[in-house]
Amino acid sequence: MKQLWLFNQINSDLQRIEKELHHFVETDYPILNESAVHLLDAGGKRLRPAFALLAGKFYGYPIDQLMPVAMALELIHMATLVHDDVVDASTTRRGRPTVKAKWGNIVSVATGDYLLARSLELIAKIDHPEVSRILAEVSVEMSQGEIQQIKASFDVKQNLKQYYYRIKRKTALLIEASCKLGAIVSGAPKRQVWALGAYGHAIGMAFQIVDDVLDVTAEASQLGKPVGGDLQQGIMTLPMILALKSTQHSERLINLLGKTDKSQSEIEEAIRLIKDSGAIEESMHYVDLYIQKAKRYLEELPNVPTRKALADLAQFIRDRKF
Amino acid sequence: MKQLWLFNQINSDLQRIEKELHHFVETDYPILNESAVHLLDAGGKRLRPAFALLAGKFYGYPIDQLMPVAMALELIHMATLVHDDVVDASTTRRGRPTVKAKWGNIVSVATGDYLLARSLELIAKIDHPEVSRILAEVSVEMSQGEIQQIKASFDVKQNLKQYYYRIKRKTALLIEASCKLGAIVSGAPKRQVWALGAYGHAIGMAFQIVDDVLDVTAEASQLGKPVGGDLQQGIMTLPMILALKSTQHSERLINLLGKTDKSQSEIEEAIRLIKDSGAIEESMHYVDLYIQKAKRYLEELPNVPTRKALADLAQFIRDRKF
Repeated sequence: MKQLWLFNQINSDLQRIEKELHHFVETDYPILNESAVHLLDAGGKRLRPAFALLAGKFYGYPIDQLMPVAMALELIHMATLVHDDVVDASTTRRGRPTVKAKWGNIVSVATGDYLLARSLELIAKIDHPEVSRILAEVSVEMSQGEIQQIKASFDVKQNLKQYYYRIKRKTALLIEASCKLGAIVSGAPKRQVWALGAYGHAIGMAFQIVDDVLDVTAEASQLGKPVGGDLQQGIMTLPMILALKSTQHSERLINLLGKTDKSQSEIEEAIRLIKDSGAIEESMHYVDLYIQKAKRYLEELPNVPTRKALADLAQFIRDRKF
Repeated sequence: MKQLWLFNQINSDLQRIEKELHHFVETDYPILNESAVHLLDAGGKRLRPAFALLAGKFYGYPIDQLMPVAMALELIHMATLVHDDVVDASTTRRGRPTVKAKWGNIVSVATGDYLLARSLELIAKIDHPEVSRILAEVSVEMSQGEIQQIKASFDVKQNLKQYYYRIKRKTALLIEASCKLGAIVSGAPKRQVWALGAYGHAIGMAFQIVDDVLDVTAEASQLGKPVGGDLQQGIMTLPMILALKSTQHSERLINLLGKTDKSQSEIEEAIRLIKDSGAIEESMHYVDLYIQKAKRYLEELPNVPTRKALADLAQFIRDRKF
């Protein structure tokens, strides 16, 4: 993981989570095993487990309580990724063919169901009513966000409110839950559970906006997937919504955004129009607002080294190029 | 529901579950709402809630504890149906177009995820460790069965052991859980929880075999979907496996079973060969063995009217033509 230095405090436990996840998803079914391991091996930043562990650092770091929560969070995240790939018709994730492209929709659905079921097993073992409640509520919201994303495909009339509604469900809520649950199972006071959750929520919003910006601006090699994937799939993101407001070529951009099968040059043209409109800078301004918000919530927390680690993490999420 | 007389004791509560399910899955998202309600309206026998309620009848029928469990079971069942339809490429269920045929894979995945998430909400509210544990374990097994069904498509070499393994996960385990959970939340003694579970397991196996037989023998109008659906989708069922053993035309039948795009006349020919081989009678003999088993387990239970209702239900499952 490239940001190892940020996670120094929790690095060996993150590696343990990695091992345990591999063991946990192992099954006698070769196809299921391959696809689940395929997902795991694609890596991913393991952000959500990291947040849970870091939250626990403030309150004595009870690793036996934190570990299953961290694993459950990552399993839920992987399950939603696999199902999102069916929904999104995407073919690469993190530079590797998606489970879907490799085996088709059907295995993706079954693999996602399997990972989710394993997370339920863990949650049942944890046997903590608030943990179960929070994860259930987040799952409901996330699935509603899934549907709204489907409904919103290629809908160029989407506004900011709809965008924020969607990314809150797609990304922010699970990261918020990661922070909160780490705090809750560590016995944090209510006020600080709330503060860590609010930090996680703001970070999650920022994270998704940066993701959406990078989809327009990054090089394919950095991203691990083709640039302009959102454009190709008709997913209206903040840079596009803002570009439509400020570009001098809104009619052309509207046509491009709404077009279902874009050529490579049409994607490049759309990217150019978005960049020229100033929408990228404006998007990053919104990111900065969320990061500032996140850092303010940190002030509620005990002033220990982990607090600085979370602030640095917030900055990293803003500055990252992948 | 056609078997109302069997459910006289619990009929008004089943209607209440129907109402509550409609309210519970209601959401602000029109597409999700439509697809979830579409599923509900297709009816279904609500067997799993019925089993949970009937189990509770032996032990004082604590309806406030039974209701959410019954609802959670039906939500899980509906979620697996919707995802199975993605997996199975089927287009009608209970005489109506499947959610999938109507809206495509993507909405099916999201709808299934939504129903499952709602069931998690309920399970979290129920807050009973054994309920959570059992439902999580069943979900893991069911998803593994999902994958094995994919892997086994058009594989004419499947044997009885593999078939039983698959239908246990697809059907028997959730019906077993329905009986057990009804008993558990009603405070039944351990031995009787086990007996009701074993009854449910045997009933579930019988139910699926009858389902598989009817897929070959029934009229389309009775079935609510085209006859020979399993044949068309390459799902190897008991009648087919037994037919391959006893038919004089095994080579022809092997070819037909393994063929991915069968014509109507090829399906009819396969059906004819299966019927002529005696495989239907042989399959029903296995059903009878399971029904006898189920009835024996009932002897562990208090000799109250509900016990006869369960025995009659077992017989109905065997004798039904739809």
